[in-house]
Amino acid sequence: MTIAIIGSGAIGAFYGARLLKAGHEVHFLFHSDYEHVRAHGLRVDSVVGEMFFPQVNAYARPEDMPECDLVLVATKTTTNGLLEKLLRPVCGPDSSVVLMQNGLNGERAVAGLGLGATVLGCLCFVCCNKIGPGHIAHLEYGKVLLGHYRPDEQPAGITPELDRAALAFESAGIAVEKNPDLILARWRKLFWNIAFNGPCALLGATTDRIVGCEATRQLARDLMTEVRAGALSVGRDIPESYIGDILTFTDKMAPYKPSMMLDAEHARPLEMEAIYGEPLRTARDHGVELSCVRTIYQQLVFLDQHLRESR
Amino acid sequence: MTIAIIGSGAIGAFYGARLLKAGHEVHFLFHSDYEHVRAHGLRVDSVVGEMFFPQVNAYARPEDMPECDLVLVATKTTTNGLLEKLLRPVCGPDSSVVLMQNGLNGERAVAGLGLGATVLGCLCFVCCNKIGPGHIAHLEYGKVLLGHYRPDEQPAGITPELDRAALAFESAGIAVEKNPDLILARWRKLFWNIAFNGPCALLGATTDRIVGCEATRQLARDLMTEVRAGALSVGRDIPESYIGDILTFTDKMAPYKPSMMLDAEHARPLEMEAIYGEPLRTARDHGVELSCVRTIYQQLVFLDQHLRESR
Repeated sequence: MTIAIIGSGAIGAFYGARLLKAGHEVHFLFHSDYEHVRAHGLRVDSVVGEMFFPQVNAYARPEDMPECDLVLVATKTTTNGLLEKLLRPVCGPDSSVVLMQNGLNGERAVAGLGLGATVLGCLCFVCCNKIGPGHIAHLEYGKVLLGHYRPDEQPAGITPELDRAALAFESAGIAVEKNPDLILARWRKLFWNIAFNGPCALLGATTDRIVGCEATRQLARDLMTEVRAGALSVGRDIPESYIGDILTFTDKMAPYKPSMMLDAEHARPLEMEAIYGEPLRTARDHGVELSCVRTIYQQLVFLDQHLRESR
Repeated sequence: MTIAIIGSGAIGAFYGARLLKAGHEVHFLFHSDYEHVRAHGLRVDSVVGEMFFPQVNAYARPEDMPECDLVLVATKTTTNGLLEKLLRPVCGPDSSVVLMQNGLNGERAVAGLGLGATVLGCLCFVCCNKIGPGHIAHLEYGKVLLGHYRPDEQPAGITPELDRAALAFESAGIAVEKNPDLILARWRKLFWNIAFNGPCALLGATTDRIVGCEATRQLARDLMTEVRAGALSVGRDIPESYIGDILTFTDKMAPYKPSMMLDAEHARPLEMEAIYGEPLRTARDHGVELSCVRTIYQQLVFLDQHLRESR
């Protein structure tokens, strides 16, 4: 299968490397690391084994890339204004765009571009970080969840396009969950992301410290209670017990810096719109106000502006 | 009049110095600055003129102080567990305790000690900071608001004890507002304190930056909307227009670091219980949940623990 990786940061490069190793034809779009990868190759230090590719199909401009069967989008949501420019060259009528980004409503944005391609959503349950140019560390997990996006945002079921994308990941030894309801899956993932990304970034604290302090553990609980209300506002009923499950899961995790905390530490743009702003506005559009989520969101907007000014 | 200053930090030393200059017999209880003031005196650099007292009645222990007519309490609320020990030696049946602290429910705590003294509340509208041992900078404002505390928390009106305390301040050229409803006044002051102390401390930002960013300006608005609901829960109806007044007032202020931001910068205990926890619990006891206030409070509890561990 031909596969384009649009945005070869930690997530894009990790999954791209796995697919490449499995024998697929993978084309990587790089931004800042293009020259380095051309000269020195791509390296992934993974808990499941080291991978090093001295030469990969690396590109600096999407116009130079071929049309591909699968188009994996792993850019940061903060650059989504560029998506049309990045995707049009690699998308044909038989392409499937697989949106591997954080947060909510990214698939809606891609579908709105009118590319003619199928739109799938992909949730990555993985801890990996870029530790240098063309150099990724894969720390834990790796499963992906795939779902087919329907513009009416109703459950799409398991479609042939979903099966085809799942097969590619499975051929690379990646665990895949094929999910009939992408929107439900997105809201479920927001539980952890909303409970931990913002508090960790704002307080400069790893996840273990957030769950280890009774006040911020309750903050996480309160935020997840609101996410549950948001999901319900779009017809997705997630059991209340899921909140306790997430806390127990996080108790057992190694101390972790969520992506937004790393972004704040490195003065990079924060993904507060995808993770906080979109859920907040979606719930509001359905008559539900998420006050705690909004309070964290407002602080993150300030922090993001502050980081931008400090760059 | 004999006056005890319990806690001679920025607020206590500033008002104590003004009362001393007006000819009252003032007894200052110091903590860390005792030795320095004994040796070098007390200095206040004020916008209304410099004050220097080479010798003042300085004490390190309340047991060494005389019983006084007025007992001004200007300790931080974070040490309120010590109030009985600090107040009993200087209080008699004719004393009035004047609580000059931030936040809510401090007078309730003093009244609960059963000292036999009158309990008055005092709100200080002043910008002053301690800039060195026994050295206070007075930057702006200075008015005090005095109210008589009634254990049933109904308006007490203007009482003789209130008049007596007001006279002392007025004799020192301090503008005094005698307020018949201390609880209303405390909630009114919480508008500014809740809108700015926590956000400034958490985001490391002066007041001008909070009002200058649309997201945190809205956060301030949302917090004040909740404070208004909290006040209403105890029967105090503050007009909604007050929120806009506070924002306009803060727009015109010189960039300012609220006390909690300075405390965070210097890794000192934060007054989040008096300013956030008590209003939150009081409103909750009256059936109203303040979600934004709670979200800020939970983060402040984390920050306070973090600062304590870093000391």
